Amino acid sequence: MELLSSHRSFGGWQQRYGFKSTSLNSETTLSVYLPPQADRGSVPLLYWLSGLTCTDENFVTKAGAQRAAAELGLAIAAPDTSPRGAAVADDAGWDLGQGAGFYVDATQDPWRSHYQMATYVRDELPALLAAHFPAIDCDRAGISGHSMGGHGALTLALNNPDRYRSASAFAPIAAPSQCPWGEKALTAYLGSDRSAWLTYDACECLKTSAWDRPILVDQGEADEFLAGQLLPQQLEQAAQAAGKALTLRYQPDYNHSYFFIASFIDDHLRFHAEQLGS
Amino acid sequence: MELLSSHRSFGGWQQRYGFKSTSLNSETTLSVYLPPQADRGSVPLLYWLSGLTCTDENFVTKAGAQRAAAELGLAIAAPDTSPRGAAVADDAGWDLGQGAGFYVDATQDPWRSHYQMATYVRDELPALLAAHFPAIDCDRAGISGHSMGGHGALTLALNNPDRYRSASAFAPIAAPSQCPWGEKALTAYLGSDRSAWLTYDACECLKTSAWDRPILVDQGEADEFLAGQLLPQQLEQAAQAAGKALTLRYQPDYNHSYFFIASFIDDHLRFHAEQLGS
Repeated sequence: MELLSSHRSFGGWQQRYGFKSTSLNSETTLSVYLPPQADRGSVPLLYWLSGLTCTDENFVTKAGAQRAAAELGLAIAAPDTSPRGAAVADDAGWDLGQGAGFYVDATQDPWRSHYQMATYVRDELPALLAAHFPAIDCDRAGISGHSMGGHGALTLALNNPDRYRSASAFAPIAAPSQCPWGEKALTAYLGSDRSAWLTYDACECLKTSAWDRPILVDQGEADEFLAGQLLPQQLEQAAQAAGKALTLRYQPDYNHSYFFIASFIDDHLRFHAEQLGS
Repeated sequence: MELLSSHRSFGGWQQRYGFKSTSLNSETTLSVYLPPQADRGSVPLLYWLSGLTCTDENFVTKAGAQRAAAELGLAIAAPDTSPRGAAVADDAGWDLGQGAGFYVDATQDPWRSHYQMATYVRDELPALLAAHFPAIDCDRAGISGHSMGGHGALTLALNNPDRYRSASAFAPIAAPSQCPWGEKALTAYLGSDRSAWLTYDACECLKTSAWDRPILVDQGEADEFLAGQLLPQQLEQAAQAAGKALTLRYQPDYNHSYFFIASFIDDHLRFHAEQLGS
């Protein structure tokens, strides 16, 4: 892992690394926030998954999460949203291909040789973090994200309750099988047989998941993608039917931007820290 | 004034406006944060002046200032760093011309027809804000900024103690007459007669200014421009000689980035709010 940048931030370090990912079969970047507590002992970890068109840097520069992370003693790992590079398949649209990996393991050509984002986040990242950051306790890990990343956080948590102890999301694509962004991406990455999509649809995952912890979701009421793409009411219904403890908060006047995330990120970090014993 | 964007942020509004500035003789943009308290009554104002290459947006997206501004009931106005546009003189370097107005009123060609940043910030902005934002009390105004903007904040405050009630800076260009950035810009905008520069050099201003309030300056010790461009020790000496109450804090390991600003912006907002009676 090559250290690309390192900035002192709220008494900790905001760092960015570049390395070759084996699951993505490409070079990638990863941003890591190490809180001041990491100098003195073990700290729990929050994975942050970003949305369409983002890299690992949007959250780091715009969410203002470092202040509360430093206070709570929480490390944050923010991966890129897809494999990247000239050798990696792409699409002319911003909602498929590079910058739009949807946190799935693709089974279809031309995507499957690089787009293994679920494996990358679930398996490769913790191994990598454990090897390079002895202060980070990857066994105490939570996961959160925004929009496409909110979808990623929810599906990864619901599919792997042994891997994550806490889960939350901002404006997640809650039912990708039923919205244009999801239908386009899941068709491309997984093929047109919709039964293969179920494991990557949070509403479907809720039906069978052994997840037994609370889930926190914030959704802006002025979100321009609310009715057409995000479908949080489906998530609410699925959680209710499955008897899962979902807290879905509608936030009046907030839109889909990082100004929305910044306004409520402290609540999410506290939610995770509480469950992770930070 | 045309509203370009409006985002709900910490219960207030982060807005961006576009308009024709008379002093700059060009179109310009202005970002304004209105805290929730502005819905119910009058709020004091902090001007934020950004550094080289920035627009009005860097501070807004990266500093994480809205949280404390909402808590303290402080409006924030962030102007662009220069006039802009095809008709506006520019330089091939990023440290002169567009994005690098240095908050001076230029007297030299080809700059003087647009580069009137001191007049714009000191006179035009408060009139504009007073006309368009009845909740903002422009008589209770403080000023702060970063790097070139820290230079702007200090010189505007010291030259106009009747206009600003509080002043602070992050890593200011503290003695522009004595550093390469300042020498290049002041020569271009004001000519080679150095006596014309004195009013735009904080160290010189301190000698004659009637400013009688405390000044807060934060400076990162790992700042890559510390020794060559910023010269905070000159500011400290000038303040001491003039008997001015400067608190200059050196912050170990912090660099020149917005990660540094974000880490200490809350302290600055509280410092301003206290003096502005927020």
